[in-house]
Amino acid sequence: MSRLIEEFRKLPGIGTKSAQRLAFHVLRSSAQDAEALSLAIRELKLHLRLCSVCNNITDVDPCGYCTSPVRNQRLVCVVEEPTNIATIEKTRSYNGVYHVLHGTLSPIGGVGPEQLRIANLLTRLAEVDEIILATSPTTEGEATAGFLAIELRRTRPEVKVTRIATGVPAGSDIEYADEVTMTRAMEGRREF
Amino acid sequence: MSRLIEEFRKLPGIGTKSAQRLAFHVLRSSAQDAEALSLAIRELKLHLRLCSVCNNITDVDPCGYCTSPVRNQRLVCVVEEPTNIATIEKTRSYNGVYHVLHGTLSPIGGVGPEQLRIANLLTRLAEVDEIILATSPTTEGEATAGFLAIELRRTRPEVKVTRIATGVPAGSDIEYADEVTMTRAMEGRREF
Repeated sequence: MSRLIEEFRKLPGIGTKSAQRLAFHVLRSSAQDAEALSLAIRELKLHLRLCSVCNNITDVDPCGYCTSPVRNQRLVCVVEEPTNIATIEKTRSYNGVYHVLHGTLSPIGGVGPEQLRIANLLTRLAEVDEIILATSPTTEGEATAGFLAIELRRTRPEVKVTRIATGVPAGSDIEYADEVTMTRAMEGRREF
Repeated sequence: MSRLIEEFRKLPGIGTKSAQRLAFHVLRSSAQDAEALSLAIRELKLHLRLCSVCNNITDVDPCGYCTSPVRNQRLVCVVEEPTNIATIEKTRSYNGVYHVLHGTLSPIGGVGPEQLRIANLLTRLAEVDEIILATSPTTEGEATAGFLAIELRRTRPEVKVTRIATGVPAGSDIEYADEVTMTRAMEGRREF
């Protein structure tokens, strides 16, 4: 029992109290349910891996995006985390593929270029027309995009490197836009 | 006393209770303070007007922006309300002049093009190189920008018409971007 509590406690956001509650729940639940949970955890690690092309979480390698015949394999959107793919897929307007960095550059947090999955992005460049840098417009996201732009251009200058727009969010009044966002919205203005 | 309460009640956000409290405050304050308030209200209407060029609130006509020798008088930013000018001035990166519409098109609210100050925008076009449509990316703001783009082009096709960027706000994680904003951020991507 204390071993299970200890294991639950290693999960993010689970303290000692919660771990005890979870362990007691397992104790009270049917042998079938406990077995199902145990199996699901084991199978996740057995079957899920990172796509060797784009680093997305997948059960087949390469992943479904990277092998899709209806997607534009020459358009690559670079994101920080696998969850960002869902955000972009929800728009239903993107038809390219992805590349997951699994983090952002963070000198304070000790994350350098070596800690990010950049190497297999550079090796993809020969088969790519455009790279969209879709890291967040946060300090770390901007630093990562800036670093990548330089690296990509140095590796293959023919590839077009673009950055998603920073601006006033749709549906929002410009009255609530902060200075930086408003500055970027003005700088980023486009011909109507 | 009841006349003053009635007048205070006409102000936005002031109910009967607040109007009474304000009136009692005036009653208790010095004759000097009461006179100063009275004078300030009268003088506002006597001295403040709308700039005949840009419709901004001003005490001299044309306003300080429209006569500034250090501002680019050939670059005009179109905004919904006079308060929007402060939002853009805070960026400290805009050096053109303004045009205030005093509202947005709203078919439901009964606001048509005639209710907005568009006529004196069209007469300015001969001396203008670029018009930035900085209405909010709300339904009404977008409709107004779309309508203006057509009108401006029809009146003087040589004038460049641009729209401020819609996108993920600076400092925000793309995880929190809604579908429309993310779609626009992708569509509005720019070469790095």
